[in-house]
Amino acid sequence: MRLDSSAAGVFPISPTPFLPDGAIDWASAEKLFAFYDAIGSDGVTVLGIMGEAPKLEPGEALQLLKLAVKHLAGKPVIVGVSAPGFAAMRSLAREAMEAGAAGVMIAPPNTLRTDDQIAVYYAQAIEAIGTDVPVVVQDYPLITNVVMTPGVIRRIVSENASVVMLKAEDWPGLEKISTLRKAQGEGALRPIAILVANGGLFLDFEMERGADGSNTGYAFPEMLIDVVRLSKAGRRDAAHDLFDAHLPLLRYEQQPGVGLAVRKYVLMRRGLLASDAQRKPGTAMSATAKAEVDYLLARLARHDKRAAL
Amino acid sequence: MRLDSSAAGVFPISPTPFLPDGAIDWASAEKLFAFYDAIGSDGVTVLGIMGEAPKLEPGEALQLLKLAVKHLAGKPVIVGVSAPGFAAMRSLAREAMEAGAAGVMIAPPNTLRTDDQIAVYYAQAIEAIGTDVPVVVQDYPLITNVVMTPGVIRRIVSENASVVMLKAEDWPGLEKISTLRKAQGEGALRPIAILVANGGLFLDFEMERGADGSNTGYAFPEMLIDVVRLSKAGRRDAAHDLFDAHLPLLRYEQQPGVGLAVRKYVLMRRGLLASDAQRKPGTAMSATAKAEVDYLLARLARHDKRAAL
Amino acid sequence: MRLDSSAAGVFPISPTPFLPDGAIDWASAEKLFAFYDAIGSDGVTVLGIMGEAPKLEPGEALQLLKLAVKHLAGKPVIVGVSAPGFAAMRSLAREAMEAGAAGVMIAPPNTLRTDDQIAVYYAQAIEAIGTDVPVVVQDYPLITNVVMTPGVIRRIVSENASVVMLKAEDWPGLEKISTLRKAQGEGALRPIAILVANGGLFLDFEMERGADGSNTGYAFPEMLIDVVRLSKAGRRDAAHDLFDAHLPLLRYEQQPGVGLAVRKYVLMRRGLLASDAQRKPGTAMSATAKAEVDYLLARLARHDKRAAL
Amino acid sequence: MRLDSSAAGVFPISPTPFLPDGAIDWASAEKLFAFYDAIGSDGVTVLGIMGEAPKLEPGEALQLLKLAVKHLAGKPVIVGVSAPGFAAMRSLAREAMEAGAAGVMIAPPNTLRTDDQIAVYYAQAIEAIGTDVPVVVQDYPLITNVVMTPGVIRRIVSENASVVMLKAEDWPGLEKISTLRKAQGEGALRPIAILVANGGLFLDFEMERGADGSNTGYAFPEMLIDVVRLSKAGRRDAAHDLFDAHLPLLRYEQQPGVGLAVRKYVLMRRGLLASDAQRKPGTAMSATAKAEVDYLLARLARHDKRAAL
Repeated sequence: MRLDSSAAGVFPISPTPFLPDGAIDWASAEKLFAFYDAIGSDGVTVLGIMGEAPKLEPGEALQLLKLAVKHLAGKPVIVGVSAPGFAAMRSLAREAMEAGAAGVMIAPPNTLRTDDQIAVYYAQAIEAIGTDVPVVVQDYPLITNVVMTPGVIRRIVSENASVVMLKAEDWPGLEKISTLRKAQGEGALRPIAILVANGGLFLDFEMERGADGSNTGYAFPEMLIDVVRLSKAGRRDAAHDLFDAHLPLLRYEQQPGVGLAVRKYVLMRRGLLASDAQRKPGTAMSATAKAEVDYLLARLARHDKRAAL
Repeated sequence: MRLDSSAAGVFPISPTPFLPDGAIDWASAEKLFAFYDAIGSDGVTVLGIMGEAPKLEPGEALQLLKLAVKHLAGKPVIVGVSAPGFAAMRSLAREAMEAGAAGVMIAPPNTLRTDDQIAVYYAQAIEAIGTDVPVVVQDYPLITNVVMTPGVIRRIVSENASVVMLKAEDWPGLEKISTLRKAQGEGALRPIAILVANGGLFLDFEMERGADGSNTGYAFPEMLIDVVRLSKAGRRDAAHDLFDAHLPLLRYEQQPGVGLAVRKYVLMRRGLLASDAQRKPGTAMSATAKAEVDYLLARLARHDKRAAL
Repeated sequence: MRLDSSAAGVFPISPTPFLPDGAIDWASAEKLFAFYDAIGSDGVTVLGIMGEAPKLEPGEALQLLKLAVKHLAGKPVIVGVSAPGFAAMRSLAREAMEAGAAGVMIAPPNTLRTDDQIAVYYAQAIEAIGTDVPVVVQDYPLITNVVMTPGVIRRIVSENASVVMLKAEDWPGLEKISTLRKAQGEGALRPIAILVANGGLFLDFEMERGADGSNTGYAFPEMLIDVVRLSKAGRRDAAHDLFDAHLPLLRYEQQPGVGLAVRKYVLMRRGLLASDAQRKPGTAMSATAKAEVDYLLARLARHDKRAAL
Repeated sequence: MRLDSSAAGVFPISPTPFLPDGAIDWASAEKLFAFYDAIGSDGVTVLGIMGEAPKLEPGEALQLLKLAVKHLAGKPVIVGVSAPGFAAMRSLAREAMEAGAAGVMIAPPNTLRTDDQIAVYYAQAIEAIGTDVPVVVQDYPLITNVVMTPGVIRRIVSENASVVMLKAEDWPGLEKISTLRKAQGEGALRPIAILVANGGLFLDFEMERGADGSNTGYAFPEMLIDVVRLSKAGRRDAAHDLFDAHLPLLRYEQQPGVGLAVRKYVLMRRGLLASDAQRKPGTAMSATAKAEVDYLLARLARHDKRAAL
């Protein structure tokens, strides 16, 4: 199972479950991966920015990946391998592919500035991990502080045959998707999968602009799956109705730095995680914040019964 | 009319109307200020980040302020005076106060890093403009790239008696409001007005956390006024219902760099601006983007008839 | 007198003299400009980053320029016009040119990231000030935080006929000069003047790489003039001997944030400034720092009698 | 051998020798460590920013450390353990200490902004690696983009008993050293070792301001040792004479991004490295740059016969 440019649908970004003492909660991980599979996810991504990857020992990272591969039987599992040095990146990428990963995701380090620096970085990273490993380029300037123009993305895709997918989470990003799809239509960009993220904040319109699906981690991935399906089916109003019902909570979860705590709290309330703990250092929610989320869940339940907890 | 720490309610951030040829559209400016007054705004802010201030000649800036003062008869008008040098800041601040402004707003330059640098900057700026000018501190790290902790804000307030209001638009910012209000309750911070912004994206909960009102520029300021009023009246569900109905459009308007174009487009569709033009250099909306906004307006009109255009 | 691409030699970056009370010290300004002329400068730049430009009122800026034009009779005077908005930039540029300036210098705002953003910014700025105004592009990433590749510089030069000079102060910058000169030799870049800066820290080798001269503000501009002359005359060892003798002091003056205080202190000790005061806010030297500079001057005087104060 | 606050003298920052094919050049590493010992270094630091640490596999890093410990018999070896996640930092720190390291060096990640964030980061990192591991705090804003005020440094030292040394390489940094020493004299800061770096660019005056020595990687560490010794002996002129003779080359080596290539080239010319190769990705010197360094070496040899190669 190797990722290629036909990837589409919803690949949830999986959090890493922890017990309150900081150990990985393997039981919850099993439950979570089984859940992603059961709801009809098209794959899953582990060890992304929201997967607390830098806090994991190499052995733990590999074990988590293997568990995902096992439970998502036959579906592609993408592994985040971003690292400050190519040694660690290469080790994880090679071992992950051997363990059954479908591809790797690479975010640019926040020191890159010029178009050349960005393009050269991806060329070097891909040389380091091996050109046989399918690559997802993560375009997330809000977090990485690296701004990739459509031209730079085209250059990366053109210079590296192993790049098969873009995780598009620029903000604003709607025109960028249109620009890339237009370039593809004109033959200036070979086909790649474009899955959108940024917490899902613009999923409704991103699908209409030509995205192939979603690759983010909202605590109700079923909504992402439904919106993608409805949108592809041309049921515009229905897609927006469902999306809008979730938007108040989705927006709350999309707060930088705090978002992961919210996401884990909701997953815990849904019974998918035994604990909302993060491995140290992590951000805790105040009692007020938890009450706010509870209120949002109660309001959401009026529109989507899956939120009736 | 001088701004003081009892400021509350909604102070819309006014855009600056332009004609397609780049001249200021004074007729639309009059209409806009009259509209802000008529809907029950508690004041208005001109020449903020969304007011295209750096594109205005000093004479234009002053004339715009005078127009606002005239039309908001008796209500406070705040003037953005952020500038790279204290000479320009002082000139505008002094002239604006003489022309009837109620206070000035100062955002920190994006070169500041440490707590000391931030605190010293405000002390120097306030010395430059004069300690008799009421000051609004703008805390907007997404745009300014300056991170102010609650401790730094307390220090600025404590060291400068003329600081009377915080424009709170950190993101996430809910806990910061709670922290500041707690400090105030404990006597560690003298009372200041906290008006929230960041496009209004968290106005619903910010009010519940202790904000005094809103100081942002959403194209339906009536909604901001209603939500603030409902929230202060304890009508929580009603406040959230109205807020949630606007959230899809509000979120669309809150896109960095593009937001002003969206805001002006909606104000034009509402008949409040003759043109959605920005003075050069500006960002234009694509036809697709305009159609998306039209769609959002049509959907919003089902819940709020003010959006039936 | 209009600046064109044949500009060469040494254009000192002039500080703005102030009296201890913050008023401009016009007498020292006259003395300083006369000094620059007398020692054989080829021109002068006022209102650069080290000229405390943002602290000057528009009227003061214009008066200072006029004084420079008067005292540098017939030699080109460049004016820094960098500003956050094009309104202020245009006003100063047009008035300065009318008052006899030879051209303007524009540094990019520190918010620019991508190659496109940089190129578009220069195109817009030049449209704003008028394509008839000769432009110096300032490439100073240490201060501006904007990284311009040789490709971007070529694009700016190619897209804007009024760009006639590069103030090259990237660090490291030697290879960039070689790359640009090579491009010029191959016809991929039309001829432009390249004057180097960054406090002069690499002037010795920059001349050998193809620079046309220096455009910086070291407190002994005579050394810059001599090194440029010796280097152009092929007297390599003599150029380095003189440069090396000044390097300990030059390095001391090249400290970010503190450098201007050092420069003004030395100019005061040389009798060229009545005071080393900066207009507020400024950085003061400690007594220890002044003693260190005195020590460096005494040591320098063994090699260069102009330092015997 | 555990590092404590009495550390003083010169701890060269060791580069990691590579063969042209990218393999670690163990023979050169042995030669280099033996050289550092023989010239009278007081210790050595491996895996710093200039040690290409992120390119090494964990096993390689440990092996390099062990080699250093073996050759610096009895002298303290400091290990850079900066990493984006605490898992990797902890692993390396624990294994290194077990293998004979005297302490670890931690630079802050470039995402930190406020005083609180910096202080909290060090507290968390030290909790992660264990409070029994002696820690060197690296203050290098030019590279890390993290600005630590003297107050923040005092807070870190006060809150973490295991912090025993500051690698001071702020720029400008002279007043910071004076401020910290003054605080120490007044009892507001417990004694810590302050070793200076930033390529040695201000070593001459930093010693006079109260530094205990140098912790940088100039290709002639003998000069650093001599200057530290002369300065401590009160032979001011002699210290400056030697320093000034090296300054042209030292300045050339201190170019961001290129410096390591220069350093390795000189070490190769000195016969201490078999190759000046960097593991990919690295920066190569042009033929012109090499000729410039050769010229600087020839000029230096007139003053310091150790440069006669």
